[in-house]
Formats: sequence, structure tokens, C-alpha cells
Amino acid sequence: MARVSQEHLDARRRQILDGAARCFARNGFHATSMQDVLSEAGLSAGAVYRYFRGKDEIIAAIATEAFAGIRGAFEEASRTTPPPTPDVLIAAVLRLFLEEQIEGADRQAFARLIIQVWTETLRNERLAQTLAEGYNGMRVVWAELVTAYRESGILAADVPADHVARTLIAVVQGFIAQQALFGDVAVDVLEDGLRGLMSMCVDPVRRS
Amino acid sequence: MARVSQEHLDARRRQILDGAARCFARNGFHATSMQDVLSEAGLSAGAVYRYFRGKDEIIAAIATEAFAGIRGAFEEASRTTPPPTPDVLIAAVLRLFLEEQIEGADRQAFARLIIQVWTETLRNERLAQTLAEGYNGMRVVWAELVTAYRESGILAADVPADHVARTLIAVVQGFIAQQALFGDVAVDVLEDGLRGLMSMCVDPVRRS
Repeated sequence: MARVSQEHLDARRRQILDGAARCFARNGFHATSMQDVLSEAGLSAGAVYRYFRGKDEIIAAIATEAFAGIRGAFEEASRTTPPPTPDVLIAAVLRLFLEEQIEGADRQAFARLIIQVWTETLRNERLAQTLAEGYNGMRVVWAELVTAYRESGILAADVPADHVARTLIAVVQGFIAQQALFGDVAVDVLEDGLRGLMSMCVDPVRRS
Repeated sequence: MARVSQEHLDARRRQILDGAARCFARNGFHATSMQDVLSEAGLSAGAVYRYFRGKDEIIAAIATEAFAGIRGAFEEASRTTPPPTPDVLIAAVLRLFLEEQIEGADRQAFARLIIQVWTETLRNERLAQTLAEGYNGMRVVWAELVTAYRESGILAADVPADHVARTLIAVVQGFIAQQALFGDVAVDVLEDGLRGLMSMCVDPVRRS
């Protein structure tokens, strides 16, 4: 058997994941067969099954990669002190991952794939685990950001960082749900909305 | 044929919807048959089909009723000037509709039913229409609230009211997604999180 370089293996894996993502976004998770993935990636059955045992493993790999990418973008964007406020940060990451990488017409399909994955976790324990890990990772990143906001005196000190973290994750999840259900929602909507909320200084932080 | 009073018809319809909601929450939308709904409601096939032609019509009726109830609760809660801030208002409505009416163990099942309905709209045009109408109704209610916040000088004047409205709806949709995916999320989380965001007076409203 010919020796195969790691670069070759990685490129092949990439080819499968990209092909599968296109199929899933176009036809949905359930209506896509492994045969569709093979055709889209231009590979033989043996080549695919060498990397992934089935659609479940492929979608889990896509989700893991997406979480890692988004988490990295948040970590990268939050290296300043104080970090950019949530409206600026969330908008920058969504633009990077959504608007710059996915054509307008495909954004609703992509969001629909995500809500299909949510529903799929109800009967797929492994995928549920993958999503839970991704969510917990995002909670950690956001909690660190919220702590930095507090330490910079721009967020009330008595609010649990994890609660703000989960609320900001909820905003993004809801944005995905709206995108899936009602079509193209511009990132501006969320950016303006968060900015509006942040302007409601009913009980403002006392600056030192 | 015996004459049937409107009260009787309404009570029977109620019985079917409540039975169906229990079945859907327990076993999911797809795994529930019309026969399950009949058994749960303690009715004959003829009685059910007189009111609803199938599961699709039942779930659309449940969704329409839920939207009307939630919208009414927001309208009721927003009669003061200025209206309660979003953290207080969203928490009050979620407590009324979720925590006071649904047992802790059933809340995740209820949230899971909602995300199943979201996915179902991808192939059910009528249900998609029902959800779109409910969402548009919520946008109107929230836009009125945001306008009231602005007029009371507690929200920045240059932010489009509809964008804040959609962001606040996104927060609730994301809360439902987290409840469905990761289990019980207390309403306190969202209330604290919104309060934290509102304390971020980076660019505060200038009071008159």
C-alpha cells in the first residue's frame, strides 16, 4: 500500500467536509445520502468511509470545526483592553463567518441546516455531546469577556458573568433561528439592537 | 342532530388542543399519531376530525394560541409609562408562560417541541405562515415598546425600533434553543444577562 502524506489525508478530509456542507445546506441533513456526499466531493465510497463512518460523524466534524473557528475569532477579537463591546464583537464575528463566507441566497439554507442539527440532537446522543461541548466552550470565552468588561468598569459588577455570557449566546442562536425561519436578517439588525439595549442606562455603572 | 352549544364546541376544541400538546411535548411532533391525540383527549375519531383535519392543523392552532397569549401578556405588561425595561418585561412574561404553567421536568420537552416546530416549518408552508404571522405580531408589539422607551428618554434615539425588537425576540428564541438543547435554563439567567447588557453605558442616552 502506498504511503500517504498527512497533507494528503488532511486535504481529502477537507474535500469531504466541504462537499457534505454544500449538500446539507442545499437539501437538508435528512434528504442528503452518503452517496450524495461522495458525488459532490468527487470521491469513491472507500475514500469517504476511511474518514467518516456516516453522516452523523460528518455533521459532528463540521459542527466541531465551526465552534473552534468562531471561538478563535472571539478570542482574537477580544485581545484589546477593554475588549470591543458585544454589539461590535458579535457583528464582527458574524460578518466574518456568515456574510463574508456565505452568499446571501445560501445564508438561509445554512441557518436551516443549524436548526436541523438542533432537532437532530434530540435523537443523536453523540451530536448532542458535540453541541454541548461547543456551547460550554463559548460560555467560557464569553464569561472571560464579561469579566474584562466588569474589570474595565463598563458592566455592572453584581451581574453573574455566566448569565451575561448565556444571554449573548442566546442572541446569536435567536439570530440563526430568525434567519432560518424568516429569511435574510442582516448583521446590522443585531448590532443596532444590542447597541440600543446597551444605551438603556436605567441603572448605570458607577465609574471610578 | 342534537344542537350543540358554542360553549360545548369550545370546550371540546380545548380538550383536543390540551391533549395534543401533552402528547407532542412527551413524544415529539413526529412520533405522535392522531390516534395518540384521540386517546389522550379521551375522544372518538369523528369528534377530533370535526375540529382538525390533522396534526398540522392542531400544531398551527397551538402556535397561534401561544402567540396570542404571549402578545397579550406583553401588551398588558406594557401599559405603564415608561413600560418596564426589557429584562423585567421578558422575565415576567416567561415566568407567566413557562415557569408557572409548566413543571420543571416538562420545560425541556416543551422547548424541544418548539424547535421541532421550527424545523417542521421548512417543509410545511402553512405552519411557516402561522409562525411568520406570530413573529410579525411580536415585532409590532416590541417596536411599540421600544418607541415608548425612546420617548421616555431611556433608549438611544438613533437606533431603529424594529432592530431592537428583533434582537429582543432573538434573545427569547435563543433561550428556547438553550432550554431544548441543554436542559433547564432559569429565567433569572436571561433577566440578569439583559440587566448586565443594559448597564453597559458606553454611549449613554443624554437625558433632557
